[in-house]
Amino acid sequence: MSFEILIVLQTIIIIWLLIKRNKKCTKSVSQATDKIANTNEEYKMVLLVRKDLKMQKGKIAAQCGHAAVGCVLKAQKYDPISLNTWRYYGQAKIALVVDNLEQLEQLEKKAEKSNLITKKICDAGRTQVEPGSITVLGIGPAPVSVLDQITGKLKLL
Amino acid sequence: MSFEILIVLQTIIIIWLLIKRNKKCTKSVSQATDKIANTNEEYKMVLLVRKDLKMQKGKIAAQCGHAAVGCVLKAQKYDPISLNTWRYYGQAKIALVVDNLEQLEQLEKKAEKSNLITKKICDAGRTQVEPGSITVLGIGPAPVSVLDQITGKLKLL
Repeated sequence: MSFEILIVLQTIIIIWLLIKRNKKCTKSVSQATDKIANTNEEYKMVLLVRKDLKMQKGKIAAQCGHAAVGCVLKAQKYDPISLNTWRYYGQAKIALVVDNLEQLEQLEKKAEKSNLITKKICDAGRTQVEPGSITVLGIGPAPVSVLDQITGKLKLL
Repeated sequence: MSFEILIVLQTIIIIWLLIKRNKKCTKSVSQATDKIANTNEEYKMVLLVRKDLKMQKGKIAAQCGHAAVGCVLKAQKYDPISLNTWRYYGQAKIALVVDNLEQLEQLEKKAEKSNLITKKICDAGRTQVEPGSITVLGIGPAPVSVLDQITGKLKLL
């Protein structure tokens, strides 16, 4: 092989590596921050709080914080487009009441059947509730209409 | 310049580009998921809730969810090691009470002076509070001792 051909080949490889490098950056940024769902519908996240545990408001606030963060971290991995759409529409979070663990787990199953992100919070139980108690279930972010089919009948906290 | 030198130079560029490409991947993965602070101290996040707005518990839960998510998203960008350490130690979140906006903003300034992550939540005000009200301030994740210097005197919500 002559030197000229080798030089041309190497030049092509360098250009290809440089192009690939830039493409990689653009792609990862757009996946992480840009794309939103092609819809006019608003998105929300719901936080279902167990009524029967009779938690104080500070406890409820921390448990809802756990659930919201848990849903966001899961959505970053498994449903970034819903996450971005929800952030674009103002990150609505609605706290609702469920009567007990049974109702909470029924709604979790329904949400999972609809392929929605769910995050069930299990409390360490240092204060107020028994160790290992399930306190809150987060569902979403997801379109309002989809969530309303599952949790539309629940009362606001 | 002779052909031989050009070929050697191009080969070096190709090897350098290939090495940089692999390093980039390793670095981004370890920043995003692995490293935790070299300490035995536990980490926490505090959520400071304004008492004077007299919000209902459902409102408080949603606002604390906003603050917790906001702090986590900021920490992913600016302080991933604290975030990982906090997650490793169980993601403690503590809801505390501040008397009013003035006290909330004083504590925000103190936290910023200590280079801590902060997230102030401004409510859309569709329910319960005036549009644009600051409702909750999230600080952290950060070491417990550092946060206690700033918020140690506040009462639990």
